[in-house]
Amino acid sequence: MPNRFRPGEAELPQRETELIARRDAVLGASYRLQYRKPVHFVRGEGMWLYDPDNRAYLDFYNNVPSLGHCHPEVNAAMAEQAARLSANTRYLEPKLVDYAERLVGTFPAEMDRVVFTCTGSESNDLALRIARLVSGNEGVIVTSYAYHGTSAAVAAVSPNLGAAVNLSPTVRMVALPGPSGVPDDQAASFFEAQVRAAITDLQRRGIGVAALLFDSIFSSDGVWIDPPGFIAGAVEAVREAGGLVISDEVQPGFGRTGSHMWGFERHGIVPDLATLGKPMGNGFPIGAVVGRQHPMELFGQTARYSNTFAGNTVGIAAASAVLTVLQRDGILEKVVAVSRRLRTGLELVAAHSPGIRAIRNAGLFFGVDIGSDASSSMERRMLALDLVNAMRDDGVLISTTAANEDALKIRPPLVCEDEHVDKFLVVFEAALRKCTL
Amino acid sequence: MPNRFRPGEAELPQRETELIARRDAVLGASYRLQYRKPVHFVRGEGMWLYDPDNRAYLDFYNNVPSLGHCHPEVNAAMAEQAARLSANTRYLEPKLVDYAERLVGTFPAEMDRVVFTCTGSESNDLALRIARLVSGNEGVIVTSYAYHGTSAAVAAVSPNLGAAVNLSPTVRMVALPGPSGVPDDQAASFFEAQVRAAITDLQRRGIGVAALLFDSIFSSDGVWIDPPGFIAGAVEAVREAGGLVISDEVQPGFGRTGSHMWGFERHGIVPDLATLGKPMGNGFPIGAVVGRQHPMELFGQTARYSNTFAGNTVGIAAASAVLTVLQRDGILEKVVAVSRRLRTGLELVAAHSPGIRAIRNAGLFFGVDIGSDASSSMERRMLALDLVNAMRDDGVLISTTAANEDALKIRPPLVCEDEHVDKFLVVFEAALRKCTL
Repeated sequence: MPNRFRPGEAELPQRETELIARRDAVLGASYRLQYRKPVHFVRGEGMWLYDPDNRAYLDFYNNVPSLGHCHPEVNAAMAEQAARLSANTRYLEPKLVDYAERLVGTFPAEMDRVVFTCTGSESNDLALRIARLVSGNEGVIVTSYAYHGTSAAVAAVSPNLGAAVNLSPTVRMVALPGPSGVPDDQAASFFEAQVRAAITDLQRRGIGVAALLFDSIFSSDGVWIDPPGFIAGAVEAVREAGGLVISDEVQPGFGRTGSHMWGFERHGIVPDLATLGKPMGNGFPIGAVVGRQHPMELFGQTARYSNTFAGNTVGIAAASAVLTVLQRDGILEKVVAVSRRLRTGLELVAAHSPGIRAIRNAGLFFGVDIGSDASSSMERRMLALDLVNAMRDDGVLISTTAANEDALKIRPPLVCEDEHVDKFLVVFEAALRKCTL
Repeated sequence: MPNRFRPGEAELPQRETELIARRDAVLGASYRLQYRKPVHFVRGEGMWLYDPDNRAYLDFYNNVPSLGHCHPEVNAAMAEQAARLSANTRYLEPKLVDYAERLVGTFPAEMDRVVFTCTGSESNDLALRIARLVSGNEGVIVTSYAYHGTSAAVAAVSPNLGAAVNLSPTVRMVALPGPSGVPDDQAASFFEAQVRAAITDLQRRGIGVAALLFDSIFSSDGVWIDPPGFIAGAVEAVREAGGLVISDEVQPGFGRTGSHMWGFERHGIVPDLATLGKPMGNGFPIGAVVGRQHPMELFGQTARYSNTFAGNTVGIAAASAVLTVLQRDGILEKVVAVSRRLRTGLELVAAHSPGIRAIRNAGLFFGVDIGSDASSSMERRMLALDLVNAMRDDGVLISTTAANEDALKIRPPLVCEDEHVDKFLVVFEAALRKCTL
């Protein structure tokens, strides 16, 4: 995480210096603060976060409150349910079933079963347990800079975590066509060949293939989403080898791409399992695994799995309100429209700036490659970091991604409107002028 | 889970039959309903849960809402914070730090660092990651019927999950003195000998000892808590071998034992890490690992760990309200008093019933061994199951535990009062009269 606070790098007001000292004295050292000068928030509303001096920051980064900060309707549903009942799933309670039916109703007909969790990490951890039990194999194939979460099993298949977190001996990484410079018309065959080689290697070692696990928007790899459908051959190859296909929808799910509710739909495939998290409850900790009947039944009938908090009625009420708003207010259509405005604006900026090499997006998830073709990878990373921090100083929140962390990660709440896009573009252009190679 | 619904075993009203059919058609098969006739709730308040016909059930089982169902003060704190801000831990926000300081303030001085999670499973999973990284070893020692959660890594050290969930090759189980029939004066040396043998075995195989992981109230083993301090020698042995001591406080923590805030205190030891969950937010999904500085720092500085939802301000607000109520209202003292009343009452019942072999408790966590000395293990298990279901039919909720599931698990919210105990005892005595060997 290059975009982080490092003591001594920037001068901070006493109020923040003291709060950081208190944090450091009580929180585990794994906690990182974002930005060279950390931000300090006490209030949120819609697209905006406010610091103690009531200075407003435009949020173009947070994908958990995808309906906006402190959404009144979601909060009312949560509060009302909390006052009535927070039941667990070992008791009959109709709202759990109502929501489960509505949720699987947004998936292809083959994916008609759901198990709830509390986090995206728990979803991916459970999906791997299901895939390993159902396939009888151990091997997992992921992309080169994949990140799938924090549990031991999931961290061990997340190369993005870096050298200090040991990878599982049973995971194989495959390169994506985009960052490898493969042209679109060869992308599918390139990716399939990578995956077939990984399958062969896993089989030669007697490990076998349990799953192909991928974020269908490839966010931590740098948002490499094109061409649509490039993963189809790889999906088939994994199925032929007896493995399951797991689409990690924690980032792209619930309409982030605008064109579809679920990222895998953009690729024209139907996975065996999909894992949900972040925006599902607009902030309430809730996730899920949605899947086909066979793996879900076989796992459930064989193994014991029970998650105390997951599916509790309060989380269900929050998630249900989120789904209602998404569907009723036509959020996906709005995402398509506003993301076009943002893309056009970024392209206009790029046309006048040598600092932008490429713009990729699916709906409101943008990856913008920073640096000129002549710049070194270190220069690119530093420029991306400078830009992110210049924008933070001007009251707009984004961060970085990609293997070299030289792509801007732009990922506003889905309720982003034209006026927010225009404000973002003004600040972005100003930051580009300030920061030079 | 013997205390569960099995289709066809009991006649159910149409309303419940239909709801179960809808559940089965959409939820993964891992979901289990408790009781032969599942309960169906739509409202909760304090010690009571209400079905759609407004019939009241006395809750002597749920330890998540430990301040009672739908606690108004906790809910108000949650709703108020949700309306203001749900910040993540990468931004400065004072309430996170305030609560972290208060929480570690309830621990021995050596344990002064905290990392938040969303569930007890995530807490145990993280604690194992820390122990393995810090010790450089892989082996984990647990008790014979331990249950520590649902993630892949934690399920693999949870023998309680049964044969269908593979145990890790690096886990070793040790017998507890109580269920082995060892007298109290030999309990400590017996347990230490078990643990030393496990250490030797792990070392002989080059696995080494990463951790002794134990629920300090040994709930899934059957609530074997005496004599206090019997684990001390084992703790020393593990430390000598370079392993960490992890106290799983998901069940005993936050005052369940009455005598102490944390279960390990009852044994006079200070672990390296303690894992928290269930009652921490009175229903809001929040957990934590609290630990000594050295392992927490070493892990945090080496590995990357970031948990999106964990430590979000809304969960912190709920947890903070829980801690305030626990401390301000003298809940622990009340637990001591009311648990004495319950114990005395149970002993009186036992004196007139051949169906009770033993009563064990630490505060408001009771294990009551069912069946006469002459009964078979199958007879005991069936009697325990009959009792639990007879009480459910009479409007009181408990369940079973222990290796043979022949112990009643009695675990009311901590706000249980004399009148609830008296009601419980009346229904318990009636159930004993109805159910015979």
